[in-house]
Amino acid sequence: MKQETWSRIAAVRHQSPLVHSITNYVVMNNTANALLAAGASPIMAHAHSEMEDMVAIIGALVVNIGTLDEYWVKSMELAIAQATALGKPWVLDPVGAGATPYRNEVLNKLITDYKPSVIRGNASEIMALASMQGQTKGVDSTNAAEEAMEAARHLQQATGAVVCISGATDYIVGNDKLVALHNGHPLMSRVTGMGCTATALIGAFCAAHPTELFEATVAAMALMGVAGEIAAEQAMGPGTMQLHFLDALYILQPEDFIQRLQITQQQDAFSV
Amino acid sequence: MKQETWSRIAAVRHQSPLVHSITNYVVMNNTANALLAAGASPIMAHAHSEMEDMVAIIGALVVNIGTLDEYWVKSMELAIAQATALGKPWVLDPVGAGATPYRNEVLNKLITDYKPSVIRGNASEIMALASMQGQTKGVDSTNAAEEAMEAARHLQQATGAVVCISGATDYIVGNDKLVALHNGHPLMSRVTGMGCTATALIGAFCAAHPTELFEATVAAMALMGVAGEIAAEQAMGPGTMQLHFLDALYILQPEDFIQRLQITQQQDAFSV
Amino acid sequence: MKQETWSRIAAVRHQSPLVHSITNYVVMNNTANALLAAGASPIMAHAHSEMEDMVAIIGALVVNIGTLDEYWVKSMELAIAQATALGKPWVLDPVGAGATPYRNEVLNKLITDYKPSVIRGNASEIMALASMQGQTKGVDSTNAAEEAMEAARHLQQATGAVVCISGATDYIVGNDKLVALHNGHPLMSRVTGMGCTATALIGAFCAAHPTELFEATVAAMALMGVAGEIAAEQAMGPGTMQLHFLDALYILQPEDFIQRLQITQQQDAFSV
Repeated sequence: MKQETWSRIAAVRHQSPLVHSITNYVVMNNTANALLAAGASPIMAHAHSEMEDMVAIIGALVVNIGTLDEYWVKSMELAIAQATALGKPWVLDPVGAGATPYRNEVLNKLITDYKPSVIRGNASEIMALASMQGQTKGVDSTNAAEEAMEAARHLQQATGAVVCISGATDYIVGNDKLVALHNGHPLMSRVTGMGCTATALIGAFCAAHPTELFEATVAAMALMGVAGEIAAEQAMGPGTMQLHFLDALYILQPEDFIQRLQITQQQDAFSV
Repeated sequence: MKQETWSRIAAVRHQSPLVHSITNYVVMNNTANALLAAGASPIMAHAHSEMEDMVAIIGALVVNIGTLDEYWVKSMELAIAQATALGKPWVLDPVGAGATPYRNEVLNKLITDYKPSVIRGNASEIMALASMQGQTKGVDSTNAAEEAMEAARHLQQATGAVVCISGATDYIVGNDKLVALHNGHPLMSRVTGMGCTATALIGAFCAAHPTELFEATVAAMALMGVAGEIAAEQAMGPGTMQLHFLDALYILQPEDFIQRLQITQQQDAFSV
Repeated sequence: MKQETWSRIAAVRHQSPLVHSITNYVVMNNTANALLAAGASPIMAHAHSEMEDMVAIIGALVVNIGTLDEYWVKSMELAIAQATALGKPWVLDPVGAGATPYRNEVLNKLITDYKPSVIRGNASEIMALASMQGQTKGVDSTNAAEEAMEAARHLQQATGAVVCISGATDYIVGNDKLVALHNGHPLMSRVTGMGCTATALIGAFCAAHPTELFEATVAAMALMGVAGEIAAEQAMGPGTMQLHFLDALYILQPEDFIQRLQITQQQDAFSV
């Protein structure tokens, strides 16, 4: 499985898929650079007048609501509708889910009206989405990780999306599938937009593997974690961390990746 | 006083206050990273539909007009009105004050209608604001630094805000209080958004010390100057400068801070 | 000629011209930093209410349509009209020309209504513009480079603009003039916004040399290429590349520049 995961990273480098991000202002530069470093081709555009035409030429769409406003939400809807019509994968990053009623309303509409292919968020965001999508909290959650996992399962079942919870351990939940990734480093949380970068990379991997979205998501998150780990070994703080991370995405070799990758899987996500 | 200043830096690291920035596109990434490196939690949002809800959950608001337009000015007003209503500190960065009539009009309205808690700008911006707020230039200003200081005092008295003039020496003017900081490095002026970063850090320090805004502003500017000095010693140019600056914010230890800090104060700002 | 090219770089450092960029969100931070590192003073502003006033105080205007929308296109038109009225140079970066009908329509209008002083794009973008401006493809183009050059010549003649095709070799086409620059490094294409940075630097050089736009464009592209080459020698990947590039812009000395610069010219662009 590690070799197969590497082969997906190699495919992105080889195919250089076109990824259209409608994302937040804070991270646009980072995520474009991460996509380039991983071998993909980034596009960022949001004008209503060109959404349909732009989505027609891309491999996957990434929607990140970080700095949403009314104009941008309309851009997202136009792009998602077109991606859906053309059968192209779209990936949702629900930044700040739960923070304000407006964010929740927008997210719930996007998820309900246009089922995302993949959703990636932190535990708090995934739990907020699951709650919007009808999850009533069980009384048996013994800890936060368990609670987040229940939410991810609910969200996966309610929407059909691959659901990724990123954190110290990343969990990717598919229909009857669960993979956990144990790479990464705490310093990653001190660099703005690392989660957004993960979502953008998922977009690139889905574009290159449109019929294997679960495996594509696993590979993207595996690349994030291993590159983050390598970068942290060389960094003195969050400034140098950013750069070494981009360098690591670019120079990573299969031997190093396979040796470092810590992945565990279960066929039945529901028995964890 | 140096020990007390360090304790405020430690408090930000410990409390990780939530800082909401409505700021310019150019510096969003930098300032979010600086806030994270200093231990704070950045939020960037501007949708009219969520301004009130967002401000309800934050510790302090930072408003920076660098790339203002009509929509964003309305966002600023909604957020500031809510911060004022809830008694939360708000910090103004008057980027480009004096450059165009539109900027002046917006700034004058924000200052007059909603007294800022703290205003930080360079000498030229502070002088432009003081002039808007009714200062008539004296005939006895013998040099530029003196002129800027007169403007800061006028602005402080007219608005009640703590006023910070940043430059080779940073001056923080409160009611009957004045502190000068002599750290920093000329290379900081070759990195875009260092002033905006200073303002964002002031926001974080005000969030952590809402009843001591003068001291919070001094501590934020002291951290900027010392971290900039450390970064410049390691930098080869403005590119590496940025990174070492973020690293320095993150790894700075009390001994190093206290040894480097160059601070002078006078109880009566008006006798300088 | 190499010495003369260096003298233009020195002039930008000395004059610190004010460059107003209406550019895309992805690259604003990079391009502001590159302008500062090269010695220029960046301004980024787009509010309709201040476009005329802002353009009145600048040395040159840079328009980059990367993340265009209806509001920003209007900002561009207001700014360009004012630059034209005041006789200030304006430089166009036609990001994504050919990608969507909306982009093409906007670009064609800007070019036709307000002749740009300089246009810089990659081969594909320049070919898309030439086609909009009435070029009918010849049947004798034997290769892609030749085809792009024909397009640049057509565009130069149709608009009067200096036209720069950037790529592994950069070509600058003026009326009866052609210069080719052979510096740079492939790693530059893995950093987002390097083309946009080139366009911004052209703006700075045009501001400093408003009556010698061809030579200004050559000097800006020469600086890009040499700085990129130096940066690549020190970089481990696209992350470190960005920083060393900014450092190189800042610390570059005449001896090193002149020794590295690879420039070839022909008086008659049409005989290449």
